[in-house]
Amino acid sequence: MIYIIEPFGGSIRRQNNNLPHVFYDDAAVTRGDGVFESILVRDGEPVNLKGHFERFSRSAKLLELPEPEEKSWRDATVQATQDYLRERGGEASDAKCTWTYTRGRASTGVPSAWITLSEVPQSALDQRTHGVKAMTAPRGYSITPNLPESKDAAPWLAVGAKTINYAANMAALRWARKQDFDEVIYIEPATGQVLEGATSTVVVVKKGMKLRTPTPGIDVLHGTTQKAIFDYAEKHGWRCKTRDLTVDDLVAAESVWLVSSTRIATRVKRIDDVKLPTPDNEAELRELFDNALTAAIN
Amino acid sequence: MIYIIEPFGGSIRRQNNNLPHVFYDDAAVTRGDGVFESILVRDGEPVNLKGHFERFSRSAKLLELPEPEEKSWRDATVQATQDYLRERGGEASDAKCTWTYTRGRASTGVPSAWITLSEVPQSALDQRTHGVKAMTAPRGYSITPNLPESKDAAPWLAVGAKTINYAANMAALRWARKQDFDEVIYIEPATGQVLEGATSTVVVVKKGMKLRTPTPGIDVLHGTTQKAIFDYAEKHGWRCKTRDLTVDDLVAAESVWLVSSTRIATRVKRIDDVKLPTPDNEAELRELFDNALTAAIN
Repeated sequence: MIYIIEPFGGSIRRQNNNLPHVFYDDAAVTRGDGVFESILVRDGEPVNLKGHFERFSRSAKLLELPEPEEKSWRDATVQATQDYLRERGGEASDAKCTWTYTRGRASTGVPSAWITLSEVPQSALDQRTHGVKAMTAPRGYSITPNLPESKDAAPWLAVGAKTINYAANMAALRWARKQDFDEVIYIEPATGQVLEGATSTVVVVKKGMKLRTPTPGIDVLHGTTQKAIFDYAEKHGWRCKTRDLTVDDLVAAESVWLVSSTRIATRVKRIDDVKLPTPDNEAELRELFDNALTAAIN
Repeated sequence: MIYIIEPFGGSIRRQNNNLPHVFYDDAAVTRGDGVFESILVRDGEPVNLKGHFERFSRSAKLLELPEPEEKSWRDATVQATQDYLRERGGEASDAKCTWTYTRGRASTGVPSAWITLSEVPQSALDQRTHGVKAMTAPRGYSITPNLPESKDAAPWLAVGAKTINYAANMAALRWARKQDFDEVIYIEPATGQVLEGATSTVVVVKKGMKLRTPTPGIDVLHGTTQKAIFDYAEKHGWRCKTRDLTVDDLVAAESVWLVSSTRIATRVKRIDDVKLPTPDNEAELRELFDNALTAAIN
């Protein structure tokens, strides 16, 4: 299901799935110049709309796109969710809602905006249940924070924005699959620091009800799912912190999870050639993560 | 004008400009996962098709896309060029042909392939005539060539491929324009080396009929226009070499040019706050560059 949003307010209209709607001169197509969010829809409710809209809005600002109107994106998401449920007779399997917002057509200068809604693919459901084998790899490039006149990273890198420029991440995943891994965890080779998954955030569970995640920053995207989990877990007796983590820290942990909106949390059952044993509290952890998402319907 | 190409051979068909043809789930739109080329069409002839197809094919290979069929891309380009000329009554202003080849729709797995043809925009023509003011800037990231088990850059970066992931380059250009520059020349901050323009190759003219360009490699894309110019100039008494160059080398040169297929060559008339004087041989150089392109109709 596709819904076109007029970027400066106005109509939201449903688009036929079987017809294309993106023009040859859209900046998404010609330059990968746009931002996106993927949102879980559970029991007919979009999860953590607030967190996603905040990051979406921040991404747009970093790319100097006009500020997205929260009401339009919320309304479109709710309409899509309702149509989706109704057309499936009220059956509420998990769905994935993707928001896309691009600089638009070169010939009009008007940004393009749309959302899609579809079932969470079986491969993602399988990873929730069965976990993943992850290989570690350097990202292959490092962001240089030392610009001549600033301590920030180069402003044009739009560091922290979730942009459409994911070709390298997709290539890394293809590369991993050829070697019988499901996922890639990026490592900073100079320091051995764990950064993030190719399309996920790393969350480590330690003895004594502790959750850890690599500190977000120029090399680690803020994770909306990780944040929802930490917010909820903090209220339920867990101590949650961002930390510098190494691969040794992952191997020594009770369990390691890759979290992202549609897969929620998938347990890492192997890192490179090290098997990670199934933790005793696996079922409780899954419940914790699921409850965190339900609590993040906002 | 748009022509859709069936990626595994088959029909080439014209697409109405006023209708969209790209689907919401095309990897170009969702991931920036595709490659492109921009080709100059002059006097009704596509320039340097051979050089462009070679780079295009290399880019596709680096992204593990199926090998593009040279005949299809050539045929489509020739058909577009002929239609373009005929519909303008044989009037032959310079045009730009863009080839796009993406991983295609997630729902079909079939790559998407199309070309567009349009007039070279006035802004590019103006830059050919009047030159540009360029600011130097670090790229903001550096590619790490030291993978654990290889001396190459991370294979998933597809280094050397001309992909759609140009959002950072576009942002750098917006940033430059705010400061009254037209172009960005990327510099490696650690060494002071000149890399390339945001959408062009740097060519330096030195006394004694010498042309220099930064050595292509992991941080510098092979330039098809630069190569066509060097091939031609070598045969006409110039000595052409790739070299490590610094900003001081640019300032000390007879003249500095940014070359790319549609703009051909635009003279850098200012670098940061240093004005570069107009060289005595400006007209001869323009003629050399133009002749090089005519010689590269292949």
